[in-house]
Amino acid sequence: MTFQVTILGCSSARPTPSRHHTAHVLNVHEQFFLIDCGEGTQYQMARYGINPLKINAIFITHLHGDHVYGIFGLLSTMAMMGRQRALTIVAPRPFALMLEGHFSFFGIELPYPLEIREIDARLSAEVWSNRTMTVTSVPLRHRVPCCGYLFREREPGLNVYRHLVEGYGLDPLQVAALKRGEDAVLANGMPLTAAEATYRPYEARSYAFCSDTTASGKVASIVRGVDLLYHEATYLHADRALAEKTGHSTALQAARLAKKAGVHHLLLGHYSARYKELEPLLTEAQGEFPDTVLGRDGLVLTLEKDHSLKIGSI
Amino acid sequence: MTFQVTILGCSSARPTPSRHHTAHVLNVHEQFFLIDCGEGTQYQMARYGINPLKINAIFITHLHGDHVYGIFGLLSTMAMMGRQRALTIVAPRPFALMLEGHFSFFGIELPYPLEIREIDARLSAEVWSNRTMTVTSVPLRHRVPCCGYLFREREPGLNVYRHLVEGYGLDPLQVAALKRGEDAVLANGMPLTAAEATYRPYEARSYAFCSDTTASGKVASIVRGVDLLYHEATYLHADRALAEKTGHSTALQAARLAKKAGVHHLLLGHYSARYKELEPLLTEAQGEFPDTVLGRDGLVLTLEKDHSLKIGSI
Repeated sequence: MTFQVTILGCSSARPTPSRHHTAHVLNVHEQFFLIDCGEGTQYQMARYGINPLKINAIFITHLHGDHVYGIFGLLSTMAMMGRQRALTIVAPRPFALMLEGHFSFFGIELPYPLEIREIDARLSAEVWSNRTMTVTSVPLRHRVPCCGYLFREREPGLNVYRHLVEGYGLDPLQVAALKRGEDAVLANGMPLTAAEATYRPYEARSYAFCSDTTASGKVASIVRGVDLLYHEATYLHADRALAEKTGHSTALQAARLAKKAGVHHLLLGHYSARYKELEPLLTEAQGEFPDTVLGRDGLVLTLEKDHSLKIGSI
Repeated sequence: MTFQVTILGCSSARPTPSRHHTAHVLNVHEQFFLIDCGEGTQYQMARYGINPLKINAIFITHLHGDHVYGIFGLLSTMAMMGRQRALTIVAPRPFALMLEGHFSFFGIELPYPLEIREIDARLSAEVWSNRTMTVTSVPLRHRVPCCGYLFREREPGLNVYRHLVEGYGLDPLQVAALKRGEDAVLANGMPLTAAEATYRPYEARSYAFCSDTTASGKVASIVRGVDLLYHEATYLHADRALAEKTGHSTALQAARLAKKAGVHHLLLGHYSARYKELEPLLTEAQGEFPDTVLGRDGLVLTLEKDHSLKIGSI
């Protein structure tokens, strides 16, 4: 029951030799989701051993090149690798028109179904779900329509205490009923309530992805209490005028938002190429919100069932 | 008076962790030219220390993603880096329409002039020139309109033998006239012909770039005798049916063409991802044409003034 984020790129518009454009891969119970797809995403996937065919759905935050230029090559590569399974792309308008125009010029016909779900970036709404997870859009404030995404694992099903199953000799039908939250009647006629017989093996985990955006209080209310918040931190606070002008945030602003929203962990990224060293961004954020992680290409963040965060790298 | 090729990517359509999409940088007398621009070209330039602002012109062979998907990000990055100098792009039709459509969707306005020179890929003609170099298109046979490019350094100017300048006490006007190929009259009234007084410091060098294409005899006649021929070698000859089907060449076919055209050196590239090891492609080509070099990302090939080839890597 994995819940894991892999960072493929942590650069803003201008990449550096060690920082690729934005793309994260979210693994929820071995279902893989790509969030943003900057140029070179398919290389980073190859480099980090992530099979493009495993991607269930792609979520695009906005139509700026550093978040979407990798999609053309990735979709073609999936075709060359023999993809037949449908692929869903969730993105703000006019993503579909843009992609159709591109396919038309390049004469591309994908051999697998593409389901494009265009969303209104100004609204917070459920934009995707399956039995494992729901995804909610998070309106952001940028120079073009832009929205983040909040990924919430569904609550895991109830388990029945093993000592009760064995002690009372519960049969499979009784166990199934208890798991559904229904009370059972024991062989001796006594009731056994679901409340006393069951427990939730772990609490659902959550990940919010917020890039690109100026610092926005509204975001805090939507991502309140999430386990891990990725928030862009393009600039140091000393350069906040630049951040304001370009529709971005500073590390301090990201940290203030994390604090205000009461999230458990903050992950930074989308750094301006002007900063050769990133530690000052981390230091700035940690002054406000200590549980901050400096995102880097190849970093892997695992939310354990107990909601602790394990950090590794590829 | 450098004449040097740097390989940014040697992969065909599907990249691998160590092989990026097609892009070469040609340095002729410290003027830099980009040939093809696959996805990730700007990363490779950053990685290998090639400043995008130094690029004088870009030559695109055809509108397949693995040769052109990097252009969108590269043009934007040049803008962010403050480019003001005009940039020329030479490419087959309908490149301009494709780029305009893209700019329109992404709301891009470049702060520097872009001169797009669309060419008819079916013709061999001079498509670009300046005082240092001429570029001729090389019609190729692929699934879409496609042409290679032949880069020829202009003949360097004549030098006057130093011992004659000193021995006869030639003045600057006389030296200049001799350099223009005009005869001079010495102080004693005797003639000094340009033929006896001058020499060419070195012979002009040439580089032909041919990708993507099925083996084509016509190419041989155009690239005859070039110093360095880059020719795609997507497949091993055992897979020649695949090569034929997809409009590509085998290593053996590339070598045969190099031999037929009497080139001095052959450079291979554009390898299918199916080949983990590339040495079999080299062995196959060298059996036919010994002076073959296996292109790889980061390889730097320098044509010296004596036309010898020096091979290094970044």
